[in-house]
Amino acid sequence: MKVICDRAALVEALNTVSGVVLARTPKPVLRCIKLTADDSPPTLTLVGTDTEVTVTLRTERIEVAEAGEALIPADKLGQIVRESLDPTIEITTDDESAVITGKDSRFKVFGYPVADFGSVPEFDGDAEFEIAAGDLHRLISMTIFATARENSRYAINGVLLERDGNKLAVVATDGHRLALAKGSCKAGGDEPRSAIVPTKALNLLLKLFDDPEQVVRCRVADNQIFFATDQATLVSNLVEGNFPPYQDVIPKDGDKKAQVATDMLVSAVRRAALLTNEESKGVRMAFDEGGLTLTSRAPEMGEAEIKTELSGYSGEAIEIGFNPTYVLDALKVVDSEEVTLELKAGNKPGVLKTDNQFLYVVMPVSLS
Amino acid sequence: MKVICDRAALVEALNTVSGVVLARTPKPVLRCIKLTADDSPPTLTLVGTDTEVTVTLRTERIEVAEAGEALIPADKLGQIVRESLDPTIEITTDDESAVITGKDSRFKVFGYPVADFGSVPEFDGDAEFEIAAGDLHRLISMTIFATARENSRYAINGVLLERDGNKLAVVATDGHRLALAKGSCKAGGDEPRSAIVPTKALNLLLKLFDDPEQVVRCRVADNQIFFATDQATLVSNLVEGNFPPYQDVIPKDGDKKAQVATDMLVSAVRRAALLTNEESKGVRMAFDEGGLTLTSRAPEMGEAEIKTELSGYSGEAIEIGFNPTYVLDALKVVDSEEVTLELKAGNKPGVLKTDNQFLYVVMPVSLS
Repeated sequence: MKVICDRAALVEALNTVSGVVLARTPKPVLRCIKLTADDSPPTLTLVGTDTEVTVTLRTERIEVAEAGEALIPADKLGQIVRESLDPTIEITTDDESAVITGKDSRFKVFGYPVADFGSVPEFDGDAEFEIAAGDLHRLISMTIFATARENSRYAINGVLLERDGNKLAVVATDGHRLALAKGSCKAGGDEPRSAIVPTKALNLLLKLFDDPEQVVRCRVADNQIFFATDQATLVSNLVEGNFPPYQDVIPKDGDKKAQVATDMLVSAVRRAALLTNEESKGVRMAFDEGGLTLTSRAPEMGEAEIKTELSGYSGEAIEIGFNPTYVLDALKVVDSEEVTLELKAGNKPGVLKTDNQFLYVVMPVSLS
Repeated sequence: MKVICDRAALVEALNTVSGVVLARTPKPVLRCIKLTADDSPPTLTLVGTDTEVTVTLRTERIEVAEAGEALIPADKLGQIVRESLDPTIEITTDDESAVITGKDSRFKVFGYPVADFGSVPEFDGDAEFEIAAGDLHRLISMTIFATARENSRYAINGVLLERDGNKLAVVATDGHRLALAKGSCKAGGDEPRSAIVPTKALNLLLKLFDDPEQVVRCRVADNQIFFATDQATLVSNLVEGNFPPYQDVIPKDGDKKAQVATDMLVSAVRRAALLTNEESKGVRMAFDEGGLTLTSRAPEMGEAEIKTELSGYSGEAIEIGFNPTYVLDALKVVDSEEVTLELKAGNKPGVLKTDNQFLYVVMPVSLS
C-alpha cells in the first residue's frame, strides 16, 4: 500500500486506536495496528485489539496511491507521526516493513504478516438502540467509577446497560456502593435487553466517541456488544454471569431528607477526610434542622469538626458514618448544583440523589 | 502562640518549606514545621529541615495575638490550610497541639515539643557574594541536570559553585557529560572561593527564591552554604571531597564547527532517538557543508534518517555518535535560538556552546 495522510488526522486516529493496543505482550501482533487503505472512496482504516476489545477507526483525510494492508507496531508508528513537523506524511508498505517519509526524514519500521491479525468482527444487522454520544458519555461517566476492581460471586467488574423501551439505565457497584444513571435512547426493538460491559471497553468508548452530537448505534450479538458511528466501531466481549438484583439494594424508606449544595458538601467532606487514616476511615455526619456537622478523628494525629449549611432538612436528627472517599467519588460526577441525601438509620445505607436521574447508594461505616 | 494568618500567604509559605520536610521518616520532628510567632514586628517564621538542608521563611501577612513557638506535622497543617475556603485562618497552639480554626471549621492537630527541633543555623557575617535570583536560577537550571546520581571517586553528586572576582561559574558533571554556565555577581571579598552544593538544596533554592528581581546573598562557613534574602534563608551542608579538574575536560581543539537552530536540532535528535533501544543507544550524526544527517538503527525494529539544515559549517566532514538523551538534556535548557557544535574526531568529546556563556561537553558513543 501507499498513502499520503493528513498528519493531524492520523495522530488523532493513532492516539485513539493505540488505547486498546497492549504495550507489553509476548504476542507481537497485539502490539500492532492493522492499516487498510481502500481507494474508492479513499479511506484509511486503523484497527487495534487486545482480543477482548477491538477498536476500528476510519479516516478520509488521505490520498491512496495504492490500496493494501499492513500490520505495524503501534508505539513506533505513533511516535514517528507525532514527532514529525510535516503537514502530510507518506506511508509505503511491503510484506515486511513500512516506510514513513516526511520532508526531511525517512523511517523504516518492521511489521508483521497481516494474516496474523485475525478477523475483525463487523457490526452486522439492526441496532438494538441509538443514543447521542454526549448522553452515553454522561451515563457511563456517572457510574463507571463504582465498578468492582476484583472478581466476586456476581459479575460486578463491569457496568450493566439495561434498556427497557426508550429508557436506558446504567448501573455499577462494588458491593459497598452502587451508582445508577438513567437516560433515554431510541430503541430498535421492543424486548427489554441488558448486557454487562467490561470497564476497559467503556473507558475506550469515552475516548472514541468524543463528539457529543454524533449518534452511536449499539447492538448485542453472540456474547459481544458493538458500538458504532460512521467513523468508528468498538466491539467488546461481554462480562459473563449475573448482575446483582440492584433494584433490591436501593432503599426506598429514607425518611430523613437533607438538601445541600454540591460544592459545599465536597469541601466539607474533603476537609473532614484529612483527619482520618487507615484505622479510622469513617467521617461522622450529624444532620438536623440546624445543619450538617462532620467530625473525624485519627488516633495520635488529631480531630476535625466542620459545619455546613443545609438548604433543607426534614425528619428527625440522625448521625451516620461514611467512608469519605465513597461520598467524594459520587460528588465528583454529579452535574447538579444541589444533591439530596435520604437516610433511614445510622446502620442503614444512605442514598444520594440529584434531580437529574442520578442515584447513589452507599453503605455506612460503624463509628465506635 | 495565637496568630491570625492570611491564608494565601500561609499556603505559599507552607508549600515551599514542606519541600524540604521528609514525608516518611522514623524521626517525627523531621516531618514537622517549626512555627515561631513574634509580635514586634508581627512575623510568623516557618522552618523545615531534613538535617542536611534547612529552609526558613518569614511572612508578615499576619496578626499576632500571642507570641510563641510550635512544632506541627507539615503534611496535615498544609492540607488543612490548602483545603480551607476562608481568607484568614486562626492558629492557636499549646504544649501538645495546634488548633486551626476557620469560619465553619475547627481542626486539632497533635504536635511535638519545640525543644526536639534543634537549633537553626543563622546567616552570620558578611556575604561571600550577592546575585539577582533570576541570574542564580539561570546558572543552576542550566547545569543541575548533569549531576551524577551515584557516588564516584569525585564529589560529582553536587554542583560546583566557583567565584573568582565578580565571575561566578557553575559546573556539574556525571563523567559522561559536563555542563558549565557562567555569570556575574557582586563579590564580597577578593579571594576566589568554591563550594560543592547538593542537588536537593539547589532544587529547593529554585522554588524558594522565585522572584527574579530579589537579591540573594551567599555565604560559606563551617562546611555549610547559606543563601538568604530578607524573607527566606536556605542552609545546606556542603558535599565533601574534590570536584574533578573540569577545565582539563573541556576540549579546546575542535576544528569542525557547525551552527544549527536549536529547535530544529531538538526535533531531529528526538526523531532519530525513536529508532534506538537499550542495545543501540547511539544516534549517528554526519556533518558536512551540505548539512547534518542523523541516522539510527534498532535491531528487529527499524531505522531512521533525518536531514537537518546547518546555518553554518567549517572544517572537514565528520561522523560521530552521541547518546540522544545527553544531547537533548542540554538543548532543553539552552536559552538561545542557535547552538554551535565543536568537534575534533569521532572518538573525541564534542562541545555544545551558545553565545550566552553556556558550554556542554559530551562523550561520544561508538557506532560499530
